Amino acid sequence: MRAVQVVGYHDKLQLNEVPAPEITGPHDVIVRIGGAGVCRTDLHILEGQWEAKSGVALPYTIGHENAGWVEAIGDAVTNVAVGDKVILHPLITCGLCRACRFGDDVHCENSQFPGIDTDGGYAEFLKTTARSVVKIDDSLEPADVAALADAGLTAYHAAAKVARMTRPGDTCVVIGAGGLGHIGIQVLAAISALRIVVVDRNPDAVELAKQVGAEIGIVADGTHVQQVLDLTGGHGAEAVLDFVGEGGATAEGTAMLRRAGSFFVVGYGENIDVPTIDVISTEINFIGNLVGSYNDLGELMDLAARGKVKLHTSTYALADFQQALDDLDAGRVRGRAILVP
Amino acid sequence: MRAVQVVGYHDKLQLNEVPAPEITGPHDVIVRIGGAGVCRTDLHILEGQWEAKSGVALPYTIGHENAGWVEAIGDAVTNVAVGDKVILHPLITCGLCRACRFGDDVHCENSQFPGIDTDGGYAEFLKTTARSVVKIDDSLEPADVAALADAGLTAYHAAAKVARMTRPGDTCVVIGAGGLGHIGIQVLAAISALRIVVVDRNPDAVELAKQVGAEIGIVADGTHVQQVLDLTGGHGAEAVLDFVGEGGATAEGTAMLRRAGSFFVVGYGENIDVPTIDVISTEINFIGNLVGSYNDLGELMDLAARGKVKLHTSTYALADFQQALDDLDAGRVRGRAILVP
Amino acid sequence: MRAVQVVGYHDKLQLNEVPAPEITGPHDVIVRIGGAGVCRTDLHILEGQWEAKSGVALPYTIGHENAGWVEAIGDAVTNVAVGDKVILHPLITCGLCRACRFGDDVHCENSQFPGIDTDGGYAEFLKTTARSVVKIDDSLEPADVAALADAGLTAYHAAAKVARMTRPGDTCVVIGAGGLGHIGIQVLAAISALRIVVVDRNPDAVELAKQVGAEIGIVADGTHVQQVLDLTGGHGAEAVLDFVGEGGATAEGTAMLRRAGSFFVVGYGENIDVPTIDVISTEINFIGNLVGSYNDLGELMDLAARGKVKLHTSTYALADFQQALDDLDAGRVRGRAILVP
Amino acid sequence: MRAVQVVGYHDKLQLNEVPAPEITGPHDVIVRIGGAGVCRTDLHILEGQWEAKSGVALPYTIGHENAGWVEAIGDAVTNVAVGDKVILHPLITCGLCRACRFGDDVHCENSQFPGIDTDGGYAEFLKTTARSVVKIDDSLEPADVAALADAGLTAYHAAAKVARMTRPGDTCVVIGAGGLGHIGIQVLAAISALRIVVVDRNPDAVELAKQVGAEIGIVADGTHVQQVLDLTGGHGAEAVLDFVGEGGATAEGTAMLRRAGSFFVVGYGENIDVPTIDVISTEINFIGNLVGSYNDLGELMDLAARGKVKLHTSTYALADFQQALDDLDAGRVRGRAILVP
Repeated sequence: MRAVQVVGYHDKLQLNEVPAPEITGPHDVIVRIGGAGVCRTDLHILEGQWEAKSGVALPYTIGHENAGWVEAIGDAVTNVAVGDKVILHPLITCGLCRACRFGDDVHCENSQFPGIDTDGGYAEFLKTTARSVVKIDDSLEPADVAALADAGLTAYHAAAKVARMTRPGDTCVVIGAGGLGHIGIQVLAAISALRIVVVDRNPDAVELAKQVGAEIGIVADGTHVQQVLDLTGGHGAEAVLDFVGEGGATAEGTAMLRRAGSFFVVGYGENIDVPTIDVISTEINFIGNLVGSYNDLGELMDLAARGKVKLHTSTYALADFQQALDDLDAGRVRGRAILVP
Repeated sequence: MRAVQVVGYHDKLQLNEVPAPEITGPHDVIVRIGGAGVCRTDLHILEGQWEAKSGVALPYTIGHENAGWVEAIGDAVTNVAVGDKVILHPLITCGLCRACRFGDDVHCENSQFPGIDTDGGYAEFLKTTARSVVKIDDSLEPADVAALADAGLTAYHAAAKVARMTRPGDTCVVIGAGGLGHIGIQVLAAISALRIVVVDRNPDAVELAKQVGAEIGIVADGTHVQQVLDLTGGHGAEAVLDFVGEGGATAEGTAMLRRAGSFFVVGYGENIDVPTIDVISTEINFIGNLVGSYNDLGELMDLAARGKVKLHTSTYALADFQQALDDLDAGRVRGRAILVP
Repeated sequence: MRAVQVVGYHDKLQLNEVPAPEITGPHDVIVRIGGAGVCRTDLHILEGQWEAKSGVALPYTIGHENAGWVEAIGDAVTNVAVGDKVILHPLITCGLCRACRFGDDVHCENSQFPGIDTDGGYAEFLKTTARSVVKIDDSLEPADVAALADAGLTAYHAAAKVARMTRPGDTCVVIGAGGLGHIGIQVLAAISALRIVVVDRNPDAVELAKQVGAEIGIVADGTHVQQVLDLTGGHGAEAVLDFVGEGGATAEGTAMLRRAGSFFVVGYGENIDVPTIDVISTEINFIGNLVGSYNDLGELMDLAARGKVKLHTSTYALADFQQALDDLDAGRVRGRAILVP
Repeated sequence: MRAVQVVGYHDKLQLNEVPAPEITGPHDVIVRIGGAGVCRTDLHILEGQWEAKSGVALPYTIGHENAGWVEAIGDAVTNVAVGDKVILHPLITCGLCRACRFGDDVHCENSQFPGIDTDGGYAEFLKTTARSVVKIDDSLEPADVAALADAGLTAYHAAAKVARMTRPGDTCVVIGAGGLGHIGIQVLAAISALRIVVVDRNPDAVELAKQVGAEIGIVADGTHVQQVLDLTGGHGAEAVLDFVGEGGATAEGTAMLRRAGSFFVVGYGENIDVPTIDVISTEINFIGNLVGSYNDLGELMDLAARGKVKLHTSTYALADFQQALDDLDAGRVRGRAILVP
């Protein structure tokens, strides 16, 4: 089969002919790829940023946001059948460690990450296990939802945590109305009655965010912290959900918090740097957020099937992978770029 | 009545004769003081550290950890009767704001703090309201529990939060086996089946902590982070409860966390300074903790009455207030110093 | 002032001239009534059903769903000012018992219930306390929201509990699309991403419920339990919210539950009668629901102000109280009947 | 190998020579049995009570409370190694359904139950999977803990739920101080600061319960409901944990509840039969409880290893199975009977 592979760091990807994967264990699942999201992380892999961390042997097939159709299954697979439309959870988890046994499989002690440390989805077929495939509704197409597998799942997981830790009518400030923020706002609007305030430097992004669920839009112009305080009666917001994590976002977001409020970290880059005296005197919290669990992905697919979360995508043929990466790098992609074999 | 008052910052306290407080409103409660804790904050007040923050007019009566007997009540008071033994919650709260109406009265929008911004308990009588008095069991004496009113309540509140966010058998590292740590460990042992690991530089404090509930004691000697990792199979602890907050405790405590673990801030001094990438890649949390609520104080008094939380105290006559402060300043007090009028 | 009073059980109500209430305590609030809901409970009071339970001395003023404008306040009231639009929580609570101090004021050990055991709102003015008045948004009118004070608050409280105990995409069956069900569905749709299934014998009510948030409507015709099982893959629903409580609704609702599901009791009349072997072998729960708390009412008013919960009302002049009661008794009221002084 | 088998209902068990189980799949685990609990359910199986429900083909090997040593493992097993001491979760679960993926594996949609519907542990060896084996501490012996695998796990699961739904100092009434009650009390005492009140008809059982953690013992003599009300100031208990479920226990337990309290169903036999008006006017809950999850079993083993939960056992050689059953039937077993191959 054809597969787009990393053949060297600081080199270009190559489209190679490789053997198609085969079922070797009872829980194996082979998926015919219907769509593979092209993500900024893919650019970082080529720059060598993940070389030491993943330790993957080259060449290998890249692509960690995948959806498609079940092509073959091992004989112990009960949750999907051949022909089912599926989206793939980004991790392959062991199912046996204490974290997996709590449904908190993202903290699995023995996981693999296709597209990062083993073969991924820029290919015609991908081999995974029954624990990673979520059957999706007939109304959804793999190429339309593939990009929800990782970026979308991260936004969902954090937004769902915000909803569980707040009350209807509380205020949630969303910092950053880019890809993840766009999904996070749709999710918050779908699953809660939070008053969603979006903050972004880009007036167009703020406007778009208001169309998908933000009640109040604030263009970050230096007065944005004060604007949040003003519209909350001087008290601040019960929750701040930060998809930026750099350029001062963490300090600004902390300054927007109400007493006993929580700052949810999703975006990263800078440090959280806050005096402990401020943390205790206002009793605020900082909550980390990684990608969502298998069941989180099931819930996100349910929201997608019911039309509550939508994604703009631009599709490229698998052979046009270089064009997709170049467009992404140059900021020319509207929504998310998806490779379709 | 006699009252020990702040008459000027950087001056000594004075024992003055002042008018006894009187009932003027229906929810007022006058308490005859049975014990008033002498706290390091009292030294800081005299140094002027609270001058700007409290804005209190001098002279005023100091003392914010108080217990005694109900002397008189307003006609709308239903929760205590004259003669009842009571401990006083440190705050006088409004009962009307949204925080108060959630039982989260520590975040009251209109609170007073006797001993800090209004007259406190270094005196024969103190005026408070029905919302601040917790009736205590016959078996307890005001002078024995007074110091639980603020310091103890803070430790209880944080420990109870740890217990709610963990599972039986999880590991909780307690950093700091001083006054608050000593109470925090007793509380954790009483209300949970956490495996309590205490870390302190002082071997005697570690030993004492093991006698009141810590299962494992570690003397901080530079290898303590590694020791915690070793005894948790390399994973780290589900919770770290930090009563120190300076000298590197926050960074060390963070390094002791398991994936998805939580660091509970109680001690303060330095900054939390942690890369957002570390927060999200391990999905850890930082949880602020202030003093406990009115109901928290009721629960702590229940534990005290059942013998599950004990405090060492050294009592001084009210007139010997200067000796008590001098002893505290010089590190000569065993347990907590208590003024008894 | 004019007030509609109960002068005897099994007698008609009378419009009497009575003294207007006056401020006598620091937390008192006098409200000029803008709307008083006419409720089936009012009919039951006249039938004597509440005589023994309330022990109220006759004559007294009826009416327990009230909203209006603040006319006067005691000198300790800080949460509302004269002229504010307010809705009244149905209970006057003590604020001092442990339940009140948890924000769980509905279980106050010393509460009063205006319109039931003390003077209510079928009058020009009503006397309550600061703890019972919730300021409402400028965009809301007292006569439009009065009926949310009790019936609506009950539906909100139960729906919010359902939302907290379920996950996005779970199924909640709402049994009964009458007054409370109509509000409950709007609330569920506003605060959750539950898949709402409404079951009612009346096809028109089912249709209306679908317009305000139910995704699936089932007319109860004997096949409705099976229909719920069919649309949940044979598993049943994670939650059943029962506003009926009679005519077999509890047994049918229990049969609709998924393993580990919860049945929320709101409507009443018949018994829950279920074998303990069934309770444990499927691990199901039965959750009681009373009226909501003060903060619940604040949250419901927030939803109303944002247009997420609406109520149909038919207004009557205070003097036309008998007509309103007769219309209610005869089933001639569209939405809720409201008396406007 | 030798195995004790059901050869016919209403017949006696037989000790047969059968083939030892072998590894056939990558997640298989063969356990050499070190102890198999003899349970009243085993008597019921022989009486035919489970014939229709289990549909198991005869002959088959009985025994559903098992512990031992790992004899062999499939090549995908990572959580145990040959020679490890293990206790067996009573169910073999799929790991793929939504319940399993939440860690709620007891509600697995595709589970097996060794000893009930497939071969169990009255034998030298038992075949299970990696998902069912919990490694236990070196200090524990299989024969000592085997009976915690099902009965103990049920008590643990319910007690842990009680602890999570209550606060320190709340009252929990435990109805029934037999086998499960005895463990439930030890667990509650270990993981909470609940005030444990035990109620049983047998004064000796009450006394024993007080020795392992109950603070107050009440001999059920017709005044026991009133005694509970008296010792809770007339309010009732926040939680009632009922291990009896017959002879009026559910009605009595419900009458012992405080407003907003919860009744936890574990024992079964009679119906819960309670007017919905009582459920809503006091806002009480009825909480079902089945056996615990895999992680619950891990936590219970942690408590056992730390000496917080102990069980009295009487051991019998495997060949003496009939004696063990006869002793159990006649009430001659002190603690739990354990077969040791």
